[in-house]
Amino acid sequence: MADRQVKTIARVPRGFVDRTSAELDAAEKMMSVIRSVYELYGFEAVETPIFEYTDALGKFLPDQDRPNAGVFSIQDDDEQWMSLRYDLTAPLARYFAENFESLPKPYRSYRVGWVFRNEKPGPGRFRQFMQFDADTVGTPTVAADAEICMMAADTMERLGIERGDYVVRVNNRKILDGVLELIGLQGENNAEKRLTVLRAIDKLDKFGSEGVKLLLGKGRLDESGDFTKGAELSDEAIAKVLSFINAGADNGEATLANLAKVVEGSSRGKEGVDELQDMLALFTAAGYEKRIKIDPSVVRGLEYYTGPVFEVELLFDVVNEDGQKVVFGSVGGGGRYDGLVSRFRSEPVPATGFSIGVSRLMTALKNLGKLDLDEKTGPVVVLVMDKDRTSLERYQNMVARLRNAGIRSELYVGGSGMKAQMKYADRRHAPCVIIQGSQERAENQVQIKDLVEGARLSAEIEDNKTWRESRPAQITVDENKMVDAVKDILAAQDRK
Amino acid sequence: MADRQVKTIARVPRGFVDRTSAELDAAEKMMSVIRSVYELYGFEAVETPIFEYTDALGKFLPDQDRPNAGVFSIQDDDEQWMSLRYDLTAPLARYFAENFESLPKPYRSYRVGWVFRNEKPGPGRFRQFMQFDADTVGTPTVAADAEICMMAADTMERLGIERGDYVVRVNNRKILDGVLELIGLQGENNAEKRLTVLRAIDKLDKFGSEGVKLLLGKGRLDESGDFTKGAELSDEAIAKVLSFINAGADNGEATLANLAKVVEGSSRGKEGVDELQDMLALFTAAGYEKRIKIDPSVVRGLEYYTGPVFEVELLFDVVNEDGQKVVFGSVGGGGRYDGLVSRFRSEPVPATGFSIGVSRLMTALKNLGKLDLDEKTGPVVVLVMDKDRTSLERYQNMVARLRNAGIRSELYVGGSGMKAQMKYADRRHAPCVIIQGSQERAENQVQIKDLVEGARLSAEIEDNKTWRESRPAQITVDENKMVDAVKDILAAQDRK
Repeated sequence: MADRQVKTIARVPRGFVDRTSAELDAAEKMMSVIRSVYELYGFEAVETPIFEYTDALGKFLPDQDRPNAGVFSIQDDDEQWMSLRYDLTAPLARYFAENFESLPKPYRSYRVGWVFRNEKPGPGRFRQFMQFDADTVGTPTVAADAEICMMAADTMERLGIERGDYVVRVNNRKILDGVLELIGLQGENNAEKRLTVLRAIDKLDKFGSEGVKLLLGKGRLDESGDFTKGAELSDEAIAKVLSFINAGADNGEATLANLAKVVEGSSRGKEGVDELQDMLALFTAAGYEKRIKIDPSVVRGLEYYTGPVFEVELLFDVVNEDGQKVVFGSVGGGGRYDGLVSRFRSEPVPATGFSIGVSRLMTALKNLGKLDLDEKTGPVVVLVMDKDRTSLERYQNMVARLRNAGIRSELYVGGSGMKAQMKYADRRHAPCVIIQGSQERAENQVQIKDLVEGARLSAEIEDNKTWRESRPAQITVDENKMVDAVKDILAAQDRK
Repeated sequence: MADRQVKTIARVPRGFVDRTSAELDAAEKMMSVIRSVYELYGFEAVETPIFEYTDALGKFLPDQDRPNAGVFSIQDDDEQWMSLRYDLTAPLARYFAENFESLPKPYRSYRVGWVFRNEKPGPGRFRQFMQFDADTVGTPTVAADAEICMMAADTMERLGIERGDYVVRVNNRKILDGVLELIGLQGENNAEKRLTVLRAIDKLDKFGSEGVKLLLGKGRLDESGDFTKGAELSDEAIAKVLSFINAGADNGEATLANLAKVVEGSSRGKEGVDELQDMLALFTAAGYEKRIKIDPSVVRGLEYYTGPVFEVELLFDVVNEDGQKVVFGSVGGGGRYDGLVSRFRSEPVPATGFSIGVSRLMTALKNLGKLDLDEKTGPVVVLVMDKDRTSLERYQNMVARLRNAGIRSELYVGGSGMKAQMKYADRRHAPCVIIQGSQERAENQVQIKDLVEGARLSAEIEDNKTWRESRPAQITVDENKMVDAVKDILAAQDRK
């Protein structure tokens, strides 16, 4: 006999997650702080849909050599391909180009939203995650980049991350371009080799100077026995690149002096150093010179960056999956991308922007104890002792009166008895429950059970302390005094 | 010669829209009101991802005969089909079933999010739109349905829609089932005919009682010459259905008495009437009897409803596309769907819920003038009169001081001259601009131009009024008094 009762298995798709009330509250709190800082800086909100035409998105995924790998795409019924956005920068470029005539220029905007990657999910690697971006489009001046770096620093502090626990690190792609030019890696036919060098430098944090040296030369064998082929640069070229990434000094001026020496002979390199010099002057003028650091080791994987690049790093230690202490690391970054909007328009449209990884930043704040993830107080629950229509009407009336007084409350709408109802109230973190059985009803009274005080009292009794001075955990009041009595209980709980 | 400069066309995909700052602000204000009401009723937030496995979503799109038509679907690399959610109910059913053991029961939750329909876009028909849902899962009692109806009424009033301008209309599918049973349309093989009857009833608003009569009989020819085939019921059956949809009376008790007569002889029909009777008692006990109306004409298209169904209708007139005055109509609805979670589990999991169409409700509030869509005050703009590093540093320092005082402000980071900068400030709705040219710099002063007062003064001068008592629209102050002077200007603007 065929089983007509075959059940579908309830499962969230791989690489996706559900979020509970406490997580949503914490995220909303964090994002409203970020929003307020961005608003203070004169940025305004904008939002794009989650789909873009695939050709408008371009192919700018980090470390993706295959076109459209990593993207969710669908062919529309008019044959056009659409993709779920994989970041918020490409859609902004499309939005700005499409609304070029009507938008103020420079255009300062921020946006928060889901982005999607069609990748193999893994621990901490999701296929849907949230980014919070701010961008200034339509100006070539690095004052725009400087403002975004300062805004990033302010954001960290407003979120409760103390000065010294974070740093905004700034570099300039033009300096890197200068270095590559000086070692003969300019031109179209060196594009792949440049990428290999870029990725090698990006590994400085992970493998140190020695590891990068190997990756710039013949290659590197890691502990697991995997060999990564190197860029096969000459010793001289390797020395040049290493002098670049090691140019960092105690203060910005000294770092810039070192960098100027490294790129001597490259006009593009000099341009990069000059831009950093301008930015440093603005940081100093606004009092940010200790929080924002010129750091030649910052690369940022994305190929579309054309000028300043920046990264916000958290400096406190956390324990990683292998039980080792490591610095928390990057929670956001960005840079100048002068080519991205120009794909749509004939005139140059310079732009710069910054993106925060929302869930990574939330993890950081949890680690610092800066995110309140406590269950908030639940609703007052009016228990259902009798189910006849008249009793239910009376319970419903109590709930209505509590709500009219602004007190979060509900009628127990399940089918279970007293014990299960008390368990439900506990689970919902109800501050108190309202009970009216037939006897109380006859006397126009209700019992109010204070669940918080009740829990405290039972703990105290176990501790063998006296509980005579305590407020009683259960009171009986006239039904028409119920709202006031609940208010008193909530106020007393708030004071604890 | 090949054109290497072929540009991509920047366009938002068809059926999708971008949202600007003013729209986002208005939506956020509206949703925070809805959220506060739902919290007051003891509901808690939860969120699911935008993808679900296609088999977990089921096929519950309204008026969709073809499976998976109307849905965006993608095959994952493990061959499983995933779809973008088309509503928030199916994902909740999956979430509840998957987390059955750990969730409190009944489980009261709300969620807001994007849903997607792969349909032909049209005026006001989008392929990505937002829903705001609340559901109680795990209880069969209609007290849960009643609470949701009252919550819907409260939500309308908290949004500023006055009593009398909205109504929550309630019906029960079991009564309809009873009617269908009484006219011989029970059983699997009548499923299609039942759907035709259901759709006919759903057209009452549009075509009136006479139109429904035609659709229940041979069919209906509309003005454009299109013929809709009818359900071909007998005259007696048609009379029965019409007596059902016309059973509405002045008050709930009278309507219920009419309905009881209509379904006499059907135990399922009687069950439905009894449930409405229970709900009416709860509405009355809580003081909602004038705002929530028993109305037999409410059907709700979705096939998965099994008990009470409800709809929030706005009663004020708007002018439609054809220039005719019509009632605004439905902004949300829902009902009991006892079968939806049970698809995943062997035990019955009764549930009920309510969904608001966010953009439709926003349109309604705009029509009522209840949504503040005014541009908010923009940032104070510090103009760039000189571009040398020292001047820029000084401008940046001014901005930093304004921001430290909590004043929304920015450095003009574009490349244009004075006139374009003033135009930019106007466009950003800047309250004032800060100007420091070489002369002011030498004297450690700044000029502050009050753009709001300036606009008012030029209007007054045109009106030929005296302006001697007015505050001057431009002042010169010492640079170290700048923050206080800006504060004074903002305060004066606020008082207007």
